[in-house]
Amino acid sequence: MIFNELLDSIKTYEPGKPIELVSREFGIEQKNIIKLASNENPYGFSKLVEETILESLKDINIYPDDSMYELKDAIANKFNLKSENIIIGAGSDQVIDFCIRSKCTQNSTILTSGITFAMYEIYAKNIGVNVVKTKEITHNLSQMLELYKTNKPNIIFLCTPNNPLGESLDSGDIYSFLKQIDNNTMVVIDGAYQEYAKYKDIKKSIDVKKIISEFENVIYIGTFSKAYGLGGMRCGYGISNNKNIKTLHKLRPPFNITSLSAKAALSALKDDEFIHKSIENNFKEMKIFENFAKNYDIVYIDSYTNFITLFFKENQSSSVVARELLKIGIIVRDLSSYGLNAIRVTIGTNEQNSIVIPCLEQLLKEL
Amino acid sequence: MIFNELLDSIKTYEPGKPIELVSREFGIEQKNIIKLASNENPYGFSKLVEETILESLKDINIYPDDSMYELKDAIANKFNLKSENIIIGAGSDQVIDFCIRSKCTQNSTILTSGITFAMYEIYAKNIGVNVVKTKEITHNLSQMLELYKTNKPNIIFLCTPNNPLGESLDSGDIYSFLKQIDNNTMVVIDGAYQEYAKYKDIKKSIDVKKIISEFENVIYIGTFSKAYGLGGMRCGYGISNNKNIKTLHKLRPPFNITSLSAKAALSALKDDEFIHKSIENNFKEMKIFENFAKNYDIVYIDSYTNFITLFFKENQSSSVVARELLKIGIIVRDLSSYGLNAIRVTIGTNEQNSIVIPCLEQLLKEL
Repeated sequence: MIFNELLDSIKTYEPGKPIELVSREFGIEQKNIIKLASNENPYGFSKLVEETILESLKDINIYPDDSMYELKDAIANKFNLKSENIIIGAGSDQVIDFCIRSKCTQNSTILTSGITFAMYEIYAKNIGVNVVKTKEITHNLSQMLELYKTNKPNIIFLCTPNNPLGESLDSGDIYSFLKQIDNNTMVVIDGAYQEYAKYKDIKKSIDVKKIISEFENVIYIGTFSKAYGLGGMRCGYGISNNKNIKTLHKLRPPFNITSLSAKAALSALKDDEFIHKSIENNFKEMKIFENFAKNYDIVYIDSYTNFITLFFKENQSSSVVARELLKIGIIVRDLSSYGLNAIRVTIGTNEQNSIVIPCLEQLLKEL
Repeated sequence: MIFNELLDSIKTYEPGKPIELVSREFGIEQKNIIKLASNENPYGFSKLVEETILESLKDINIYPDDSMYELKDAIANKFNLKSENIIIGAGSDQVIDFCIRSKCTQNSTILTSGITFAMYEIYAKNIGVNVVKTKEITHNLSQMLELYKTNKPNIIFLCTPNNPLGESLDSGDIYSFLKQIDNNTMVVIDGAYQEYAKYKDIKKSIDVKKIISEFENVIYIGTFSKAYGLGGMRCGYGISNNKNIKTLHKLRPPFNITSLSAKAALSALKDDEFIHKSIENNFKEMKIFENFAKNYDIVYIDSYTNFITLFFKENQSSSVVARELLKIGIIVRDLSSYGLNAIRVTIGTNEQNSIVIPCLEQLLKEL
């Protein structure tokens, strides 16, 4: 059978290795594996989430409420907006897909920074869309502006803070940038790690209400997979003006999140204390990694997220480091597939980090 | 902002009204609402599912195992196939989307029966694909063959048993049909209700292993939302030869089902007793609806599913019946949007049906 030829050029996403797989492959007990590869919240999730799942479990034979009334309302409240400004996705990456398919057709163009979240490119390539990237790997808005002028992209993606590198744009710079972009070019601001960034430095914080009111072409994206601790539940959202959200809804498949995911996300929004504690601990623990990097003369990017990206010297291979760690049950992300000699490590709990750092030190001595 | 013009013609799916909404709208307590609108399993789900969710709940901060190793293996076992023959979808309708996007581009054509599962058309229209339908509303394979010859569709959809009508093709007729279709036309056999059909009449049962081995162009689709009682968990699957499945995987977004959904589906597959009991009860209870229809001279299609479609006389409006039922907290599906003066009613439990049938009788007397 001959398939659509677009499929020939499709790249697939390479997820962090799951605990189950590492356990099978290396014969290590699951409870002894430390997964710092997918930027999950190592402190788990709110107690309220557990309670709501236990309550809702009896109804999982029933399809979800496709209006997602309560959840959209709660997200709208968080941003001081209305329910009509919100669309729910099966993870924020489904909203990315809606954005691309709403605005692009074959041979359209999207613009991203040199190295950023892989799903922009994957969803674009799925429908034959070209991807233009800045030369600089982190977000460089003047390079973006140049490329915008020459390439007239349909969408510009700003991932701020940026995954997998960790840097974050100042919101003032984003405003100045947006003023130079025409109304008909969609700008997607991916704020998957915004909860972390705004804790560390208020200048990085996006005022979502203000930005979507001032710029009709902006779609803001958020997720429950990071700070909210619901990576396994697949729930994210998009925010924009009513007209844009109505259009994106045309591409949303019915029942795109599970009933338990909707309930879990709703409860997660009610527990600010859990989020605050998680983020506070995250940046306290990040210092341990920063100190380690300084001690070993390893370059790192100042991170506004729950991970840190460590760039190794030429004589140290990130792939070797990642593989050696894997053998002893520590999963980190090797960034060699991005063309970098670097690893991305999720900031774990103190207990996890106290195991990981000495292992890293030992490894570097042996290399 | 100007969007992709394809979006102008998009229809959206109209789901069965959720219990929450009816409760809000009509001020009826949720526990007093009887939902027979979405063909969920009214007997709930297996005890094993509950146990596995309680066990797995602690890990929902972690992304799902994207290899879906265990679940694919278990589905493969059910059909005496290999893991490489299986793809998992967020509901079987995501697999429908993969099929359409793998085989069609703008202005391609798909062929379906006159009235069938709405998502074929919705996903097709999303990417500008034309939909050709037989004149007859139920599956008529000779009409399909004629239209196949004149329209050269990229995909033919056979929904067997057919939703929302309930009829089911004989598997022998499907075989004869497939022999007349060229290798390069994909045939999707949607078996969402196959568990019900094969219980009622073995002639309706698709031998999935045999059919995908003999016909390289067949994709079989199944779901956990109906007999398995997991409508809220969004999990379905596609089955075909290794090569086709590999291609469909290119379109699968990472982590497309939740970790709890994967665990729930896996456990659901282990409890044949629950499925058997559910289906046995279903057909016992269906007789009550058939008798009601006969008594009131209402036409119905012999159903191989867990629902029955009742066609009213000209002086009885299906919309009025559905609306009046809704007011007293009984949700059924009015099929007037399909151009039919009919309602589709999920076969409930004996307790539910004992309430619903007298209400229907009363209503018909008043009309």
